[in-house]
Amino acid sequence: MSEKPKILNRKVVAQSRLFQIEALDLEFSNGAKRQYERLMRGKGSHGAVLIIPMLDNETVLLIREYSGGVDRYELGLAKGKIDAGETALEATNRELKEEVGYGARKIQQLSAFSIAPSYMEHTTEIMLAEDLYPERLLGDEPEELQVIPWKLDNLAELFNSGECTEARSIAALYMARDYFKPV
Amino acid sequence: MSEKPKILNRKVVAQSRLFQIEALDLEFSNGAKRQYERLMRGKGSHGAVLIIPMLDNETVLLIREYSGGVDRYELGLAKGKIDAGETALEATNRELKEEVGYGARKIQQLSAFSIAPSYMEHTTEIMLAEDLYPERLLGDEPEELQVIPWKLDNLAELFNSGECTEARSIAALYMARDYFKPV
Repeated sequence: MSEKPKILNRKVVAQSRLFQIEALDLEFSNGAKRQYERLMRGKGSHGAVLIIPMLDNETVLLIREYSGGVDRYELGLAKGKIDAGETALEATNRELKEEVGYGARKIQQLSAFSIAPSYMEHTTEIMLAEDLYPERLLGDEPEELQVIPWKLDNLAELFNSGECTEARSIAALYMARDYFKPV
Repeated sequence: MSEKPKILNRKVVAQSRLFQIEALDLEFSNGAKRQYERLMRGKGSHGAVLIIPMLDNETVLLIREYSGGVDRYELGLAKGKIDAGETALEATNRELKEEVGYGARKIQQLSAFSIAPSYMEHTTEIMLAEDLYPERLLGDEPEELQVIPWKLDNLAELFNSGECTEARSIAALYMARDYFKPV
């Protein structure tokens, strides 16, 4: 396995309210030099969680939410930022109450995914929430989200529908299916 | 299902060599207004492919590649941009030859994933490559990539290793496993 490239120089080359872009001057162990750009997590970011809320061992709760990046409604798993001073478990329970209308008595981390590791720093903690109870918290959502129960043994229909396209949701749903019914 | 928010205004708020960030002023169907930011595909982008190269019906070829966004080597599926004038199938075969050292006689699209639809426009075409033959093309990689065969019936070990974290690779590998052995 190669030694990691040396970072010769790094600087912020563009910035907006939410995003910061950094240029990296790299030297690989074979001497090759490249400039890479990467998207940094926002200043003061504490990471993010993606939540797999299980109504029972076979049924996951999806939400339908407007997704500004692709300008359409997407069916997928709830997710959100971890606030300052919050643990990933606390952020999970808060977002679950805000977006899905449930709290969870049992929450555990299944995995952590990178989003596009070649050009994004971001990582998302994948949280499994079980033993749910109805509770709603008012979040900052511009409109109420539609909640849709879906059977884990029917993921092919969901992914073929074209309504659930996000790689993180797809990967987490497969992982949950394996968790409850190992192959 | 709600009517899609109206886009009242959009403008580029930051730009670098590879990235362009756009601010969207939105009005939801209930009257709520929000400003969202999203990362646009680069100007002149023709999309991207992620490739599942199968050595046989049970064995996929992974690559180990330095990932600048997270500053570490990652194990995952080959991917790359579609060049101007190329189809997704042609880009798949070219990237496969450049990154993995094989061509494919059979290529089909399994799916298309969004990366982070709430704030990114990007979509990746998920391509299954079969009936491989050795052929190497010189690409723009700064160093040769290590190629690692992996059995699709042993994905848990791969994902638990912490070396394969990208949601797109994880989702595509599960999807390939289901394709060859439907549950």
